Amino acid sequence: MANKDIRDVIMVGAGPSSLAAAVYTTREDIDTVVYEKGAIGGLAAITDMVDNYPGFPDGIEGLTLAGYFEKQAERFGAQIEFGEVSAIRDENGIKIVTVDGEEVKAKTVLIATGSDYNKIGVPGEAEYYGRGVHYCATCDGAFYRDKRLVVVGGGNSAVQETIFLTRFTTHIDLLVRSTIKASEVLRRDLQKFIDEGKITVHLNTTTEEIVATDGKVNSVRAVENGKPTTFETDGVFVFVGLKPNTQFLSGSGIELDEQGLIKTNEKLETNISGIFASGDVRSGATLQIASAVGEGAAAALSIREHLDELNRA
Amino acid sequence: MANKDIRDVIMVGAGPSSLAAAVYTTREDIDTVVYEKGAIGGLAAITDMVDNYPGFPDGIEGLTLAGYFEKQAERFGAQIEFGEVSAIRDENGIKIVTVDGEEVKAKTVLIATGSDYNKIGVPGEAEYYGRGVHYCATCDGAFYRDKRLVVVGGGNSAVQETIFLTRFTTHIDLLVRSTIKASEVLRRDLQKFIDEGKITVHLNTTTEEIVATDGKVNSVRAVENGKPTTFETDGVFVFVGLKPNTQFLSGSGIELDEQGLIKTNEKLETNISGIFASGDVRSGATLQIASAVGEGAAAALSIREHLDELNRA
Repeated sequence: MANKDIRDVIMVGAGPSSLAAAVYTTREDIDTVVYEKGAIGGLAAITDMVDNYPGFPDGIEGLTLAGYFEKQAERFGAQIEFGEVSAIRDENGIKIVTVDGEEVKAKTVLIATGSDYNKIGVPGEAEYYGRGVHYCATCDGAFYRDKRLVVVGGGNSAVQETIFLTRFTTHIDLLVRSTIKASEVLRRDLQKFIDEGKITVHLNTTTEEIVATDGKVNSVRAVENGKPTTFETDGVFVFVGLKPNTQFLSGSGIELDEQGLIKTNEKLETNISGIFASGDVRSGATLQIASAVGEGAAAALSIREHLDELNRA
Repeated sequence: MANKDIRDVIMVGAGPSSLAAAVYTTREDIDTVVYEKGAIGGLAAITDMVDNYPGFPDGIEGLTLAGYFEKQAERFGAQIEFGEVSAIRDENGIKIVTVDGEEVKAKTVLIATGSDYNKIGVPGEAEYYGRGVHYCATCDGAFYRDKRLVVVGGGNSAVQETIFLTRFTTHIDLLVRSTIKASEVLRRDLQKFIDEGKITVHLNTTTEEIVATDGKVNSVRAVENGKPTTFETDGVFVFVGLKPNTQFLSGSGIELDEQGLIKTNEKLETNISGIFASGDVRSGATLQIASAVGEGAAAALSIREHLDELNRA
């Protein structure tokens, strides 16, 4: 195992979780390479303002925070490279990771590729991401205290998050493409808020455009029962599902849950020994930066322990 | 449950984990009180330099970081009070928490009282805590790159951490009061480092004093086999056990592991519904600020979910 062509750890994805893990591994001289196919910092980097990452009492811009994570990992020697990982396999304990078509070997792997929120794909959605268009109520709901919102979606999570958002808002228009597809308990809950006038549900309603003036979202153009209409609003939350970035694991033998998130044990290890997962790609993830970072640190300790066991063997 | 005398959540201990949780709960208007019997910020507050909390690329003083955690929780309305919690019990779902002899009621409780490192109780130990005297190799080992160390202890964790520290140090003197009490595997491992001259083990050795000049630790006075001796060193690590702050839970019915740490499920809930635990007091804790904070955020989401269920019932 002293072969220098075999890295100590390959981390897949350069979001908060793996950058936190890399701070830990590299600070302990564990040879670490992080591969990222897109932007460093993950979803944090494209978040306008992060209000709830502990340590920044007045909030911090997502891009700035992501930059700090990167700088800290690099300070201790993390090697961050651009490259798309398309496959991972285990050969007699050695992990073979395919990066841009080339095979790289490692003793351990940390998968921290995160999840993406599904988009509705209308004009204005990408432009105002994080500045009027949101996908995480826990993260951004509190910015809409005493404001009006439009929510798009009709499944369990849409209904649940809409109810949650009522603790901040004066009123919510819930735009549902066809009909509500939520559990009986949630429908009953929803009815209470409809009765109180806090939520208005619009069935058979297609969202067409998110409209802003001077960079500030102020309305949503939609078609309700075939009739064009406009909803005035201070912001839009979209809850139409989550897409875990685990497509590249098909055929890897790594166990996923029914949502496509990676199953791990209490050591954040997958069903394959020496392959770990942390952050938003992990089954049970909270989709919070703080938790992704905490799990990254914990995963690094598990990785160290695994490497120690290999050295001992 | 609308009784105003019943708090939404009582958090016990004002360290990084509960302060992180309080950022989440209060930001969502969940009525939150945090009781602390000692210093706000927990062990973080008495750490000289925190190098591995993600977000601070050049490290940050522990006291400063703890202050940021506190300020952020208070910004959203957390009420932090001084008071010693001596008992927690559940009466038909209502949690009764005894604070300075008075009973306070809550719908949920988060226990985040942390753990303390056992001390050897010699002169110099308290004075140079975090500045030459350390209890966590993962946290502070990297500050001793190419330096000499003295380690005090002889159990499993002392041997394991001493071996870990060799990745940084030039040499370690391991001072063992009587004999090594570690597993066979660890002893075999240790022998390799002894043979390589990286660790010298001193049995029947009692540590008497940690000596510093101009505020800088430079030696340890000890008695080896009855003979006074001095070990030159750049720092001291003490590994003589961990004391989880769970004594006040005796009789509560909350399940602890054999070390006295609180057992939790994947939602960070204890065996009593509505009572949660996070951070260093939790069985399986990594004793890292990042993980304590991440767990605090996750616990807050579980607490919110629990409160929602109560409201629904």
